Amino acid sequence: MQALLPALRERFGERVSIAGAVLDHHAGGGEGVPISSRPDAVVFPLDNDEVAFVARCCNDAGIPIVPYGTGTGLEAHVAAVHGGISLDLSRMDRILTVSGDSLDCRVQAGVTRLQLNAAVRDQGLFFPIDPGANASLGGMASTRASGTAAVRYGTMRDAVLGLTVVTADGRIVRTGTRARKTAAGLDLTRLFVGGEGVLGIVTEVQLRLWGLPETVQAAVCQFASVEAAMQAVIGTLQMGIPVARIELLDAVQMGACIAYSKLEGMQPQPTLFVEFHGTPASVREQIEMVEQLAGDAGGSGFAWAERPEDRSRLWKARHDVTYANLALRPGCRMIGTDACVPIAELAECIAQTLDDVARSGLVAPLVGHVGDGNFHLGILFDPANGEERERAEALAERVSLRAIDFGGTCTGEHGIGLHRRHQLVAEHGEGVELMRAIKQALDPKGIMNPGKMFLPVESSNQKEAAP
Amino acid sequence: MQALLPALRERFGERVSIAGAVLDHHAGGGEGVPISSRPDAVVFPLDNDEVAFVARCCNDAGIPIVPYGTGTGLEAHVAAVHGGISLDLSRMDRILTVSGDSLDCRVQAGVTRLQLNAAVRDQGLFFPIDPGANASLGGMASTRASGTAAVRYGTMRDAVLGLTVVTADGRIVRTGTRARKTAAGLDLTRLFVGGEGVLGIVTEVQLRLWGLPETVQAAVCQFASVEAAMQAVIGTLQMGIPVARIELLDAVQMGACIAYSKLEGMQPQPTLFVEFHGTPASVREQIEMVEQLAGDAGGSGFAWAERPEDRSRLWKARHDVTYANLALRPGCRMIGTDACVPIAELAECIAQTLDDVARSGLVAPLVGHVGDGNFHLGILFDPANGEERERAEALAERVSLRAIDFGGTCTGEHGIGLHRRHQLVAEHGEGVELMRAIKQALDPKGIMNPGKMFLPVESSNQKEAAP
Repeated sequence: MQALLPALRERFGERVSIAGAVLDHHAGGGEGVPISSRPDAVVFPLDNDEVAFVARCCNDAGIPIVPYGTGTGLEAHVAAVHGGISLDLSRMDRILTVSGDSLDCRVQAGVTRLQLNAAVRDQGLFFPIDPGANASLGGMASTRASGTAAVRYGTMRDAVLGLTVVTADGRIVRTGTRARKTAAGLDLTRLFVGGEGVLGIVTEVQLRLWGLPETVQAAVCQFASVEAAMQAVIGTLQMGIPVARIELLDAVQMGACIAYSKLEGMQPQPTLFVEFHGTPASVREQIEMVEQLAGDAGGSGFAWAERPEDRSRLWKARHDVTYANLALRPGCRMIGTDACVPIAELAECIAQTLDDVARSGLVAPLVGHVGDGNFHLGILFDPANGEERERAEALAERVSLRAIDFGGTCTGEHGIGLHRRHQLVAEHGEGVELMRAIKQALDPKGIMNPGKMFLPVESSNQKEAAP
Repeated sequence: MQALLPALRERFGERVSIAGAVLDHHAGGGEGVPISSRPDAVVFPLDNDEVAFVARCCNDAGIPIVPYGTGTGLEAHVAAVHGGISLDLSRMDRILTVSGDSLDCRVQAGVTRLQLNAAVRDQGLFFPIDPGANASLGGMASTRASGTAAVRYGTMRDAVLGLTVVTADGRIVRTGTRARKTAAGLDLTRLFVGGEGVLGIVTEVQLRLWGLPETVQAAVCQFASVEAAMQAVIGTLQMGIPVARIELLDAVQMGACIAYSKLEGMQPQPTLFVEFHGTPASVREQIEMVEQLAGDAGGSGFAWAERPEDRSRLWKARHDVTYANLALRPGCRMIGTDACVPIAELAECIAQTLDDVARSGLVAPLVGHVGDGNFHLGILFDPANGEERERAEALAERVSLRAIDFGGTCTGEHGIGLHRRHQLVAEHGEGVELMRAIKQALDPKGIMNPGKMFLPVESSNQKEAAP
């Protein structure tokens, strides 16, 4: 590392830093019981060639590279657990091309989703993938992000047409094309989307865009039970009603949101937040159908967020659940779960999960992108209480393993990172060996985001040998 | 090979064949200038364990395996160019599970799309991906198939939730989950979708299903020019109108279809075939909007295929274009192209292509999934005329390379196979080296469908060294 710094200084000048505050900022803890690790240096590249230069230097010297976007990921993807270079892509923030006719754009990895939306709105376009945080699009691609609008618009898996990636040995590779579909060779784009930086560095992203919907309406509907709310959700999906968002908050979560976000006229009961996009006529029809389904399930009438500012307040309350949860118990920390299961299993999976929560004696509000079968517990614990922390971890583990048992996944959208590496083995078994073989083929020296996604080989073997 | 046969006979009995007619049937030519190569033997496995047994035997002996579905692919994917075992999966034809509530199913690789649709129709479900041929779902996954309904429902990339694959060394690996989305590790599912059998054998497919639309309507609209038709298409996409199919046929193609399929009341002019799915009200609204856009572009009024049998006749005419084309010139053969470009480039790309066709002096009808930016030329040539064949090949090559120049791909849906291997290099450059590294990692002995997707290393180097 000491040998590398002069070369980096010569090329990057002020854009390489070993200042303590900068290293701290790039130590990336993530949610839950964080592992926070400082890099040895942070480099701020401006273009593909600079990224490739860093990769070549680090590959030659066997020094880790940890790609860094906005640091808003939840699974400690950016923690430099083996030191090395934190490669901060935030200054690669140029929107390179926008095509309204082809409904696509190309951005540097550091462009954030709000920045992109602000830039394309005047052309009547928007980028709908919305994980809540104002994440960078490179980071969203690298973690296969999704969020509240995935039920209608898909995830980053669907929205990314192509990438520029820099390989561990410093090659600059363009994957995919601008065409909507391709059958040309192995799907490198989808391999790097969700690759969590372990295969290479995403430096540019070609994205689909969508036309701004003519009409947007949002509503809230409350139910006597989670089962009743889920009955309305399953009916909506089976009828193919193209809802733009459909979010479930359980009674505890609603209580937290009512208190924190001052939601008026709502009860701490299981609740759906729903949003409709389309022409006025199609939105009207969607609303009629969903309102009917909700009524059949015993839901309250729809409370409407008619004005844009009401809608913003509603979704802000949804996105602020973490703060609302932490406010329930000052000084606490939170472990988030990310189970995602087949839709038909979701009601039963949630019911068993809420039983677990009750038995655990912990406070753990539940919120979910239920149109995708995805839900989160925010398990609160006192960081000073070791026994409670263990109980919280055990609850989180049970939720993840149950999702796998139900034919689903331990992580719908947050990723593996550090804390779910053993769950990846539980979920994919032999498949993890194929993933490792691919990692080894593309990063033979193991410099790319080491320690993430895969357990160390020894500990992985122990895990598999365990009864 | 002679050493392997007894072991295969012992395990498979009558289900291993070296009969000449069976070998001929599995020699898989594909379209254009076919390379047809017989395997040394054909094996008909019934389950994953049998496939794994063949893989282990072949891997130990270094003998090629060529997975075979229905042989309906267009790019000679199933030709046994290096001999070995053709692994015919057609007897793995069981539908394993169907969930109407979760809208998914799991099938063995040999189940065909029409078989699946017949089986799920009673539950109000359908599987919309429609490449025309009654292909096997394993084959469709392996070639990343799409077809006429991709503009609404996506391609096999989107429809496949997970797979069972057998690796070259005989491991049985489940990829993906039944959840709609996952962020758990590298996306092995998307790596094997479109993998053309070079990484392993797809033996089971977990697929999304859709509810049968309440209303289906199809219409035909004729235009004075391809540009006018494309104006209507681009307007439709920009307004986000969820058409289920939108197909362009140029004047020559319409002439061929009118003659072959006895289409009445139509002129040999550029034509759109459009289909609408949805509720009665939403279909009505979609039709009004598209009819308006078509009228603005100078299109004729819509000619409706009201009854299911009229609709079937219309789409049969569309799917029979190959026969209609071959009937234009008895005794001819046909090279198909598969360019796919960004939507905004499609009109110009087609215009330049039609200029090329005119200059070539060849007959080459054009038909396209224009909602995806994908179009095909069917270039007719006299197989006895070497100069004409060369002209046809040169035209096809120009079309593919132009698509790449326009930011698109040489193949939207047919795949690389044998004939496009050099185009893969033109399109992806250094990316092909990453694909090769992955192939090498998962199939170190190179037994999986050798000779497909990748040029031999020497010839690939020559290609890259050429000016």
